[in-house]
Amino acid sequence: MSKVRLWIIGSIGIDAIETPAAQRGELLGGSVTYACAAASFFTRTGAVGVVGSDFPTAFLERYQRFGIDLAGLQTRQGPTFRWSGVYEADFINRRTLDTQLGVFADFSPELPEAFQEAPFVLLGNIGPALQLHVLDQVRGQPFVVVDTMDLWIRIARPELEQVIRRANLLTLNDAEARLLTGRHNLLECARAVLAMGPQYVVIKKGEHGAMLCSAAGISLIPAFPVEQVEDPTGAGDCFAGAFMGFLANTRAERIDEGLLRRALLHGSVVASFGVEAFSTERLERLTAAEIEARVQALRSMCAV
Amino acid sequence: MSKVRLWIIGSIGIDAIETPAAQRGELLGGSVTYACAAASFFTRTGAVGVVGSDFPTAFLERYQRFGIDLAGLQTRQGPTFRWSGVYEADFINRRTLDTQLGVFADFSPELPEAFQEAPFVLLGNIGPALQLHVLDQVRGQPFVVVDTMDLWIRIARPELEQVIRRANLLTLNDAEARLLTGRHNLLECARAVLAMGPQYVVIKKGEHGAMLCSAAGISLIPAFPVEQVEDPTGAGDCFAGAFMGFLANTRAERIDEGLLRRALLHGSVVASFGVEAFSTERLERLTAAEIEARVQALRSMCAV
Repeated sequence: MSKVRLWIIGSIGIDAIETPAAQRGELLGGSVTYACAAASFFTRTGAVGVVGSDFPTAFLERYQRFGIDLAGLQTRQGPTFRWSGVYEADFINRRTLDTQLGVFADFSPELPEAFQEAPFVLLGNIGPALQLHVLDQVRGQPFVVVDTMDLWIRIARPELEQVIRRANLLTLNDAEARLLTGRHNLLECARAVLAMGPQYVVIKKGEHGAMLCSAAGISLIPAFPVEQVEDPTGAGDCFAGAFMGFLANTRAERIDEGLLRRALLHGSVVASFGVEAFSTERLERLTAAEIEARVQALRSMCAV
Repeated sequence: MSKVRLWIIGSIGIDAIETPAAQRGELLGGSVTYACAAASFFTRTGAVGVVGSDFPTAFLERYQRFGIDLAGLQTRQGPTFRWSGVYEADFINRRTLDTQLGVFADFSPELPEAFQEAPFVLLGNIGPALQLHVLDQVRGQPFVVVDTMDLWIRIARPELEQVIRRANLLTLNDAEARLLTGRHNLLECARAVLAMGPQYVVIKKGEHGAMLCSAAGISLIPAFPVEQVEDPTGAGDCFAGAFMGFLANTRAERIDEGLLRRALLHGSVVASFGVEAFSTERLERLTAAEIEARVQALRSMCAV
């Protein structure tokens, strides 16, 4: 087994989801799940998270089939985190029906020795205090990407600002960018985020793609137009995971805008596959050739 | 004066608009106004519309400074069409405060002799019965682009379907595409529109750009990220007008996807200038060099 170049922390859960396409329960979910599965197409990836004693062995086997390093996975007595939600007809707006934190409520992440010097870190969407706690266990100067959500902006802003200050890149969606910065225009939002510390910010716009901003300028990243969406859950995590996996795999001397754009384009494409089925089901049968074909297709859709 | 290669029909009005940036009245507006002004940067453009006896001479002079051919402009006894509206904080959602049709209520467009053989026609957003009436006066086989809006989809669908059947390209926004086709996924919407007759459909997504679809495939057209929006009114008309003007100017042997993409990119850029001020005020001081610089900037934002 090669050494982990990227590790990802976040939630691991069992989901019950209703979309206009179907209704499903007992789904392997959580930000770590989606992001690690997506990253695994490009690099050796480690997961940091917690599951309960009810977590099915079959789910662990699915991680292993993706080649995900589970040294950072804790198993604790008690129930696994559970989430259930229902999507509206647009496949975008969703309502949470129920959240059961289970063992996630007392999660105290410990970074395995083997992960501590990994050059790429994705702090997925969990409380910023946990993100800080795990970041303190890092050695060296990894490239740190932080994801977050509206909840933390509302209830844990001081800790979130600390994490953001230590991030190389912050990723968040357009609504979150507006909430965080109190501005509406996304360029102003981006500038306000950069003033908080990170060199880069990626504002995600769902089916409309994403925008990368830095002192060097703006990059527009298209979304691949998906014909048949089945379940959009985890699209942002797949995007971030594949983006980081691609970055970690390139072994480039330095990270520049061009490399970040290519990485984000791959994120966009892997996310477009992810939403074609529930949980990681589409990713489980996804091939490198399919990814490459869709990257080329997306490139040619945008060529002017 | 060179011969008109493109003519545009639509509304001409006097607007009163409130946006989060400012409140203004007695503004030169209407789809013909915005589209002709935008097209005039690329080709000799004719306007077809009606104004009342109260229409200020200063507004006619503004058309003339754009070099717009006014042979198709009727002046009728009575008041000019007036519209007033207010935009929400997002600069997108708007509420109509008042509409006064005035002389527009009895508009019966007559196509000037000099316009009848023009190779490019933009049927701007007016009732489909008027669009059909003027299309019947055309000679030859021009490239016909049709714009429409939710109102006509709701109240004049049979006539609208006739116009669409005779269009080479239909342009409409995402909400209108969904309303027209009864589908949600934009690729399915596009396919349903193509089945109605046109070879091309352009689905506009405002600040998120546009999508061109045909039997040959999909093109994604980015929007230029605008720093300071002052008034978004007429953005779609500027987009369509500049797109058609660019097409009309190329004198290409045939129209293909590549040419359409370049034309749409120019539409995107001119629209991005248009929203930086009220009415056609930004376009009045816009230069060809500024357009070209922003086209290059937009291209480099999207290069992967």
